[in-house]
Amino acid sequence: MKSSDRQTAEGILFTDMYQLSMAQLYYRVGLHETTAQFDYFFRSYPDYGEHQAGYCISAGLEWLLDWMQDARFRDEDITHLRHQTGQAGVRLFADDFLDWLQAHGTFEGITLYAIPEGRVVHPNVPLAVVKGPLVMAQILETSLLNHLNYPTLIATKAARMREAGSGHLLLEFGLRRAQERSANAGTRAALIGGADFSSNTGISYVLGYPPKGTHAHSMVQAFMALGEGELGAFRAYADVYPDDCLLLVDTIDTLESGVPHAIKVFEELRRKGHKPVGIRLDSGDLAYLSIHAAKMLDEAGFEDTAIVLSNQLDELTIWQIVTQIRTEAPRCGVDPDRLVKRLVYGVGTRLITSRGDSALDGVYKLVAIQNHHNNGEWVPAIKISESPAKTPNPGQKRVWRVYDKRGKATADLLGLDDEDPREMDKILLHHPIEHATYRVLNREDITEVEPLLVEILREGELVYTLPSIEDMRELRQNDIARLDIGVRRLMNPHIYHVSLTQRLWGLKQKLITSAI
Amino acid sequence: MKSSDRQTAEGILFTDMYQLSMAQLYYRVGLHETTAQFDYFFRSYPDYGEHQAGYCISAGLEWLLDWMQDARFRDEDITHLRHQTGQAGVRLFADDFLDWLQAHGTFEGITLYAIPEGRVVHPNVPLAVVKGPLVMAQILETSLLNHLNYPTLIATKAARMREAGSGHLLLEFGLRRAQERSANAGTRAALIGGADFSSNTGISYVLGYPPKGTHAHSMVQAFMALGEGELGAFRAYADVYPDDCLLLVDTIDTLESGVPHAIKVFEELRRKGHKPVGIRLDSGDLAYLSIHAAKMLDEAGFEDTAIVLSNQLDELTIWQIVTQIRTEAPRCGVDPDRLVKRLVYGVGTRLITSRGDSALDGVYKLVAIQNHHNNGEWVPAIKISESPAKTPNPGQKRVWRVYDKRGKATADLLGLDDEDPREMDKILLHHPIEHATYRVLNREDITEVEPLLVEILREGELVYTLPSIEDMRELRQNDIARLDIGVRRLMNPHIYHVSLTQRLWGLKQKLITSAI
Repeated sequence: MKSSDRQTAEGILFTDMYQLSMAQLYYRVGLHETTAQFDYFFRSYPDYGEHQAGYCISAGLEWLLDWMQDARFRDEDITHLRHQTGQAGVRLFADDFLDWLQAHGTFEGITLYAIPEGRVVHPNVPLAVVKGPLVMAQILETSLLNHLNYPTLIATKAARMREAGSGHLLLEFGLRRAQERSANAGTRAALIGGADFSSNTGISYVLGYPPKGTHAHSMVQAFMALGEGELGAFRAYADVYPDDCLLLVDTIDTLESGVPHAIKVFEELRRKGHKPVGIRLDSGDLAYLSIHAAKMLDEAGFEDTAIVLSNQLDELTIWQIVTQIRTEAPRCGVDPDRLVKRLVYGVGTRLITSRGDSALDGVYKLVAIQNHHNNGEWVPAIKISESPAKTPNPGQKRVWRVYDKRGKATADLLGLDDEDPREMDKILLHHPIEHATYRVLNREDITEVEPLLVEILREGELVYTLPSIEDMRELRQNDIARLDIGVRRLMNPHIYHVSLTQRLWGLKQKLITSAI
Repeated sequence: MKSSDRQTAEGILFTDMYQLSMAQLYYRVGLHETTAQFDYFFRSYPDYGEHQAGYCISAGLEWLLDWMQDARFRDEDITHLRHQTGQAGVRLFADDFLDWLQAHGTFEGITLYAIPEGRVVHPNVPLAVVKGPLVMAQILETSLLNHLNYPTLIATKAARMREAGSGHLLLEFGLRRAQERSANAGTRAALIGGADFSSNTGISYVLGYPPKGTHAHSMVQAFMALGEGELGAFRAYADVYPDDCLLLVDTIDTLESGVPHAIKVFEELRRKGHKPVGIRLDSGDLAYLSIHAAKMLDEAGFEDTAIVLSNQLDELTIWQIVTQIRTEAPRCGVDPDRLVKRLVYGVGTRLITSRGDSALDGVYKLVAIQNHHNNGEWVPAIKISESPAKTPNPGQKRVWRVYDKRGKATADLLGLDDEDPREMDKILLHHPIEHATYRVLNREDITEVEPLLVEILREGELVYTLPSIEDMRELRQNDIARLDIGVRRLMNPHIYHVSLTQRLWGLKQKLITSAI
């Protein structure tokens, strides 16, 4: 895209056309400044086909706020809208509406609550609640979904990969296969969700995490073509980076050529007083090769060098590699624990595109609107669906997390905004769909009831201290530690409970009945 | 992201760190200005699990060129690199290298050949060939892959959806589930590959295609909550958009409420001399509902109104819907041909994220390098892989498409750059991997031999007239029409032949033998 077009394509018009069609309609019928409330939530955990997530990690909020702060209707945007015509060839947007839009079309009237980035989140729980003038709350929909769906998807995938790798060093390498500019949002989400560092240089500098990377096959190829061979390439690399020497050993043959050449160069470095960093394996049977490479490195006295693994890794392949090493390494005389601890995982495509489930099914639903004919009374709104699971929970709500005696999260609870389960003697957790299914927790079964939504914007003003990525990582680690181990399982996880209070359940049933 | 950080994150540092590590190494050993050649190609068609692509549509080139034109090492970028430290805490990049980078680090020395956007393309055929100073050709790698992989993936998916919908109107609705900013690249690729229009407002204006869209459930919900019901919402919409009245009919109950209310409003519009546009179905059994909605609309005299279908559509669901309508519609007294012709497909998530296969496996491989010790002789380069299919085709090559007697494309042929199959009496097409497999085409079997690569940049200068999206669509339509029908099949397509000339095959075998 030409840089001059970027503001048009990424500013306030980074939204669906129907938001603007509806905006004009609301303006025309006098509803444009009526206060409405929308919930953002996802309906189901990512399902990767052969495995499924049991929890998600919230991400994306800060960049949504950045977008909201900059977005406004510039002259150029209004001109585009002014020239838009309909089926009959006449203008679609009238001047009075466009004038209003240009004067009032900012997010300065929006109040926003959200669950902070880095926290564990679950389906049907509002991750963000938007309250504000109907027109602007509606125009916000598309961009809000866009800014929160993808990062939450990627932070979730990164958390799974970290879990599979037992928390060992995880590097994000996805830029080349990422979906264009979203690579940067993906890198940020990966850093929140579980990656330690990234190869993506620019965004790493922006976020304050040094970018990581060594060399590619092409460097070895170039030296080979010029008659200096793999060893020549490795020596050149060691000369330039004597303290950062990490060599890619699979350009020709990993065990016959790459590892022996690397060891030769490492020995030369050692003699000069430098400490080699390690090797990278990017093809073949990574478990088998890492066992045999480790054996060769150990025998040469390089027990501490890292072994970086890359090539289409995801949580299942990482888990498989670790499992295979635990079985096979002892037979080859290699200590599996020591080997697993020196592994570093370089994850690219399958992280940055969330392979297996490439979209989070987040939605943004009108849940309440003020009736200006009736003293501004809040009226709950509902959308009926043939599938009961898709009928959203209506009304203005609050969201709570309930921790059991062990201190583990046992359920997320949605209640009406005048309900506070911290004041209840016992908490009734109603199943969100099934009429007769509920669970009762007595006060003594509960260690904590935690409100999850935080006020972020109050009528457009930031009333929240944006946490650092380190803070978000700490939230993530704490939240994951407080999940039941079954919920954390990579495959067929336990289903975490998301429940309604008795009163919210009652409201939902009433609205469904009256709508039909 | 703060807009002030955008240039750092999206400029020349939108690359992998290892490109810069290698760049310094090349500078240090005096290879930085050595001319090298890299091929960009993908290894396999997208495989969506239960179905597979038999061809791809090339896309992304123009925006890559835009990026290359703007990208340069600014002071801020150099400062970031200057502060980067390695394992030993010392600076990774030396001043002399950084000075050189700031002075010479542009793409002004790059020569680029590519297969134009919109064309049908196949695995292992270079879609882009980069020739230039080793350092800058290497730094370009990540961004080139990023700018071409995703658009080609999405243009391919869009072409499949269009094929499944028999070329009927296809609208791209994916912004909300897209991967952040890449939504815009995705919309552009969809417009090249098969979508007629998009709901994504800003980029539609930039590209000159009017954005499309009507209203959401939330509008009906708001009117319901305020006591004016679905009919009130529809009437308000018809008042504001009398000539563009397309109503979403599934907020409450499609056949019991939505369609009857829409018909009532359409009748009111008709009496006022307006022509209603149609209805949109966004849930439930879309085949069943469209048959019954069509019947109701027909009976009310609205035979020409469109029926827009949306909700998790992809090529298979579109194909299933059409198939089901052909079987079921006659039993309900609805003409299936007329019904299918009035359908419009709104495709979102599954298009914009290429559901089933979320990344194209495009790679960028060094294929030749000039030996400055030997009068600048070009030396072919190779990377051996354990899997023969992953060993790239070495050397400086040209790419041809061979059309058979029927005028259908029968193979893409890779040859050395001094070979011209147009001058051959008969063409030998060697299988790319299997030693004894080849096919011979005699002159009389061939109607055309077409060179596929076009010169785009000559030492940084644009020597190519950028085509419009309409031109690209025409290329796509012509190319698809010249594919064998079996290659176009949605499931289990015929495998199109990508072959090597005898001489290229010989070179590849020689290099493999000498490398091992």
